[in-house]
Amino acid sequence: MGQSRSYQVNMRIVLIGAGNVATHLGAALIKGEHEVLQVFSRSNASAVTLADALQCQAINDLSALRKDADVYILSVSDAVLPDVAKNIPQTDALYLHTAGSMPIDVLPMPRRGVLYPMQTFSKARAMDFHQVPLLIESQTDESLLRSLAESLSNNVHVMTSQQRKRLHLAAVFACNFVNHMYDLSAQLLAEAEIPFEVMLPLIDETAGKAHKLPPHQAQTGPAVRDDQNVMHMHEEQLAHDPQKQRIYRLLSQSINLSFNKK
Amino acid sequence: MGQSRSYQVNMRIVLIGAGNVATHLGAALIKGEHEVLQVFSRSNASAVTLADALQCQAINDLSALRKDADVYILSVSDAVLPDVAKNIPQTDALYLHTAGSMPIDVLPMPRRGVLYPMQTFSKARAMDFHQVPLLIESQTDESLLRSLAESLSNNVHVMTSQQRKRLHLAAVFACNFVNHMYDLSAQLLAEAEIPFEVMLPLIDETAGKAHKLPPHQAQTGPAVRDDQNVMHMHEEQLAHDPQKQRIYRLLSQSINLSFNKK
Repeated sequence: MGQSRSYQVNMRIVLIGAGNVATHLGAALIKGEHEVLQVFSRSNASAVTLADALQCQAINDLSALRKDADVYILSVSDAVLPDVAKNIPQTDALYLHTAGSMPIDVLPMPRRGVLYPMQTFSKARAMDFHQVPLLIESQTDESLLRSLAESLSNNVHVMTSQQRKRLHLAAVFACNFVNHMYDLSAQLLAEAEIPFEVMLPLIDETAGKAHKLPPHQAQTGPAVRDDQNVMHMHEEQLAHDPQKQRIYRLLSQSINLSFNKK
Repeated sequence: MGQSRSYQVNMRIVLIGAGNVATHLGAALIKGEHEVLQVFSRSNASAVTLADALQCQAINDLSALRKDADVYILSVSDAVLPDVAKNIPQTDALYLHTAGSMPIDVLPMPRRGVLYPMQTFSKARAMDFHQVPLLIESQTDESLLRSLAESLSNNVHVMTSQQRKRLHLAAVFACNFVNHMYDLSAQLLAEAEIPFEVMLPLIDETAGKAHKLPPHQAQTGPAVRDDQNVMHMHEEQLAHDPQKQRIYRLLSQSINLSFNKK
């Protein structure tokens, strides 16, 4: 790393994976003036789509990996990450993974780190990557990893594997489960031919409140008021849909328990 | 209604109730240049607080109600609404309630309607009432009610009691349950001494996506990928907290079912 600055701000990178995270990360790497050499994906079509967007080479065979990158970023699903990490040809470069719930030592290489963008990515939606919290961890290459992360986002935090694991779990509640609640709400509206758009001001305000009040303090609705009449009517409305009814009951009970403890 | 316009845009109103909805509605009525004559609440302290803010009279005895208002707005909890509606002294004015899940005919008066502001209100948080969806219903006084509603908000929709009931249920999912997910997330972070603020970009993006993509299409996370390893790890992390673990399981199962049907 003798040539330092120019090396650090303009890295040659190979992307392993072509999913949602790899797609947004790839675009951010190009904007950060890094050079993406190759995109690997087991699915040739995915590799080609992303490689075309990043104007680089698509490969679907790990043995075709270039050996001259500064950083290899493994952005694959958690389920296949251990396997890919084991089978990828090693150089003396830095290897990173992007998985929030996986420890750093899933990577067997001597120079390793984690670059976890804590955000919900959809290929179909553009994203201002500068706002995305990047949670980083590296014992061997913290300053290099920090340079890379800070070239992509203004929101970089060093976290241990243990903390990241907890954050990832908390994000499932605050993002994945929240989106599923939107989905269930949209289904209920569609059944009554009411457009989902009417719900958007409420969704925005609920999210907006989280910036100003602790969520516990912002809680509203029948369960926090222990309004049994309304809850009973709601459960009746869900009689045709046992899965939604179970969810309604469990979440109302959970809210109720956290407010109306004896 | 012979004097029409000035009567319609500048109404004399009595507010029954001094909770979150009444507080925000009261402020919006004053901004809309209506005259709030009185605030009634069984709790004298609540009545005085809101009446002071609106510079009008506080009462805690229904027999002290003025008889010369154009509109009486019953903004009390669903649980007590039927009782209050029955016991309030009647004039020939228009009587409204603000409860999303209650039918119009909970009001026994000949001139009656519903003015349901579909929003999550906290007394501690200011609100741009012009953005709040107001769902209105009145057989006898639709045009008067519409004038009133449109003086308060740019987002007025006529809905039947049946549709409003469905919307109210859908709002519990999209708002109350969503906020509870934020709360559970905040609890998980607090246990690991991670500030909740790190979650805000993710919360904002999740809400922002709902404007652009149907929520079903925007779903991300381990359950939609059917990533059993990650889900198993998450459940282990929740072993100390059976209530959160049950919620994690049920919601993951619900997401999984809606994406990975055989």
